[in-house]
Amino acid sequence: MTAAAPDSIETVLQSLIRDVPNFPKPGIVFKDITPLLEDTCGFRACIEALAERVAAHKPDALVAIESRGFIFGAPLALHLGLPLIVVRKPGKLPRATESVAYQLEYGEDRLEVHADAILPGKRYALIDDVLATGGTAEAVVSLITRLGGRMACAAFPLELGFLGGRARLAGTVAESLVVYG
Amino acid sequence: MTAAAPDSIETVLQSLIRDVPNFPKPGIVFKDITPLLEDTCGFRACIEALAERVAAHKPDALVAIESRGFIFGAPLALHLGLPLIVVRKPGKLPRATESVAYQLEYGEDRLEVHADAILPGKRYALIDDVLATGGTAEAVVSLITRLGGRMACAAFPLELGFLGGRARLAGTVAESLVVYG
Repeated sequence: MTAAAPDSIETVLQSLIRDVPNFPKPGIVFKDITPLLEDTCGFRACIEALAERVAAHKPDALVAIESRGFIFGAPLALHLGLPLIVVRKPGKLPRATESVAYQLEYGEDRLEVHADAILPGKRYALIDDVLATGGTAEAVVSLITRLGGRMACAAFPLELGFLGGRARLAGTVAESLVVYG
Repeated sequence: MTAAAPDSIETVLQSLIRDVPNFPKPGIVFKDITPLLEDTCGFRACIEALAERVAAHKPDALVAIESRGFIFGAPLALHLGLPLIVVRKPGKLPRATESVAYQLEYGEDRLEVHADAILPGKRYALIDDVLATGGTAEAVVSLITRLGGRMACAAFPLELGFLGGRARLAGTVAESLVVYG
């Protein structure tokens, strides 16, 4: 008697992430994670797989990036029993912040963290939904390290490999569950 | 022999939510939830208490509002084993959306949901971080009901009772864990 092998997390994610052509503009194929979030078993499997990858790097806390990073970072923090630190868009965090600029296609934007949230010498795992060009993640890594934090890893359910973001995180281990291209 | 009574969830939350005076402008006292998120036991207790309140209304799915609603909605969805539907700011969701306007202090903003995410006759629990004036929650309730969904409840860790938001949700049961003022 043989049991069917359980689907790999990569297969599960691929089946629950939908390609949406020409979004946000012509020629781009957007990876839509909303079907994953609406599938409890798939979403739970994703969090458990991320937790296993992240735990191996022994972080002291998770740093989630607004706003889709919150969707994965919050359950992951509870699953791992680790503090959740939020990196937000400008003007949202009420106390003293440290901020960092990052490039957009046209112009730049900023991200902020409470300055006292990052403790010197502690190890942080950055969490976002997708590793694309790596610009945002690179900026947040520089924010964490500027405040004296050390990087345990950066983790993403999805990676758009063809955009080469991994190379911009050179000093930080990048973990992803499914790589496109 | 007597054991110390465990702290009520209200006491736990009050101890982990920080008052920040004069944010975002003079005269406003902002309720900062970041210490709660950095305290795993407190954050977990918050999700468990919300789960108990929400489960009593037997929703078929949760609807979380960008972006702090994601922080509570995602773990709550996994805890309850329910689908997570995201309501986002304009231009973020890639497929056909239904949108709703809501008033800001000056001008208005919009929120969107994938039109096929809300199923007629199903029961939805709206999740956000705080019930303040109720303007956002009221808008999302109208979005859900316009698509044929029914409201199971609206749930928030915090409620700023003095702003009267509960009255704007008249037809929907509002659950909150700690009420200020």
